[in-house]
Amino acid sequence: MEWKEKFDSYRVMLEEALPHFLPAAEGPQKRVAEAMAYSLLSGGKRIRGVLLLAMCDQCGGDLRGALPFAAAVEMVHAYSLIHDDLPCMDDDDLRRGKPSCHIAFDEATALLAGDALLTHAFDVMVESYYDGALPAEVSLRAVHALSEAAGVGGMIGGQQIDVEEAGKPMEAALLETVHSLKTGRLIRAAAKIGCIAAGASDDVILQADRYAEKIGLAFQIVDDILDATRTSEELGKSSSDLENNKTTYITLYGEEAAREKVQQLVLEADLAIKGNVLDCDFLYQFADELAKRNQ
Amino acid sequence: MEWKEKFDSYRVMLEEALPHFLPAAEGPQKRVAEAMAYSLLSGGKRIRGVLLLAMCDQCGGDLRGALPFAAAVEMVHAYSLIHDDLPCMDDDDLRRGKPSCHIAFDEATALLAGDALLTHAFDVMVESYYDGALPAEVSLRAVHALSEAAGVGGMIGGQQIDVEEAGKPMEAALLETVHSLKTGRLIRAAAKIGCIAAGASDDVILQADRYAEKIGLAFQIVDDILDATRTSEELGKSSSDLENNKTTYITLYGEEAAREKVQQLVLEADLAIKGNVLDCDFLYQFADELAKRNQ
Repeated sequence: MEWKEKFDSYRVMLEEALPHFLPAAEGPQKRVAEAMAYSLLSGGKRIRGVLLLAMCDQCGGDLRGALPFAAAVEMVHAYSLIHDDLPCMDDDDLRRGKPSCHIAFDEATALLAGDALLTHAFDVMVESYYDGALPAEVSLRAVHALSEAAGVGGMIGGQQIDVEEAGKPMEAALLETVHSLKTGRLIRAAAKIGCIAAGASDDVILQADRYAEKIGLAFQIVDDILDATRTSEELGKSSSDLENNKTTYITLYGEEAAREKVQQLVLEADLAIKGNVLDCDFLYQFADELAKRNQ
Repeated sequence: MEWKEKFDSYRVMLEEALPHFLPAAEGPQKRVAEAMAYSLLSGGKRIRGVLLLAMCDQCGGDLRGALPFAAAVEMVHAYSLIHDDLPCMDDDDLRRGKPSCHIAFDEATALLAGDALLTHAFDVMVESYYDGALPAEVSLRAVHALSEAAGVGGMIGGQQIDVEEAGKPMEAALLETVHSLKTGRLIRAAAKIGCIAAGASDDVILQADRYAEKIGLAFQIVDDILDATRTSEELGKSSSDLENNKTTYITLYGEEAAREKVQQLVLEADLAIKGNVLDCDFLYQFADELAKRNQ
């Protein structure tokens, strides 16, 4: 199967499952469930969910067992975008070419929809145990990988630094910390959880983690490059890093060095999986495609 | 042991443990960890955590195993208060007689501190499994009870309705739904998780749930009564229901009928535990004391 075809088969499997993992939009509180669906089902590349499924597949795991975990990781990603777009954070009106959640609904509903997606992510992961598809220990390890990556030592920590440093020049080391916490940790969790769902050994989980660390940083640098070279319309979001005086890999090193750094990270990602269980064309090309992407 | 003494022994055990369950305030993101501590450790009655420990104790469980769960429930409660106080929600500057989290810190940090407390609650519950104190199934059931109670079908659902209906008259049935979702579900989860931690049977968990349902509603009605009869200074929070045109048990039924309803709910709570494993003076008096409280 061609890479694109395989990527799409994972993505479609996930897209089709996502609505079923959401709470029903019913009762007097249905507006918050509608806001959850609005943000979760609004497209996006599904990098994290697809990576989780691909890792599970490559480790010989059952994709049905991994699907709730992939859905949960996408929920955590969607919640982080909703809260990030709020007026007290980045104050972004546009997300993926559509009005942000707090514009389409209202601020209070967006706040609660974010809270609800985070809460529901854990609910969905734990419920997977009741389906009998996976042992309790596996569900617990997966929940732990997600709760660690999403917390103060991970995504939220990265957002906190990002908010505090907004508009100030940042040193290279701090910028790398922000990226590795804010974006990297969740991508790494996705890769690890895919292996955990397949019952992989600690060694394999560690290799997946290293691979994902590299592609996560590459992904973020490509984001910086795209932001500096494309218009808002092309990107589907309204704020530009330059306008906001944001420190990025471009402002620190320039475009050429940033592109070289991406290539180096792809090589390092390849090395992390070379000659072990995860060694496969799909993951090599996954790293390549992330580096080449233009949106 | 006198009731008050026993309550305080649970409360002190919990208070002493809480700081240890928080993430260290270190690294460039330490401000968000400081905001978490500010809100979590700012006192409060610890009704939920104490109820959880008391239920576990009464079921013959090990309190050490239940402590992380009690801490997690208090974290979820603290997060809900932080987000509830934000300008886009109730816009409250005062909480427990101190500046609300977004006043003491800033809006973005308060938003993230709430997110982090919710995330960390699940982290702490899951880590309890690694301590070896409890089987994986027990940790998973506890996480599930919390994720269900805190989500759209529980606390968040109640907040959504509350926000949407703000300033409009509410019918009695809808007011009861709001209270049972917004306040009741987390109190019920605390009671159930205490029993789950002790390995209690489904029957006992159900009795704990019924008891907590009754005292949860009684608790909320007492809140309404206190709000209508005490000043902001006495209550330690700034907004009054009357000023906000809020529908409460007082506006619907008047103070006397509200007080009668509380007494009836205490009787129903007592009946729920009469003659079974949970039948004990502490829980009878717990219901009584909640009904009599003056803050």
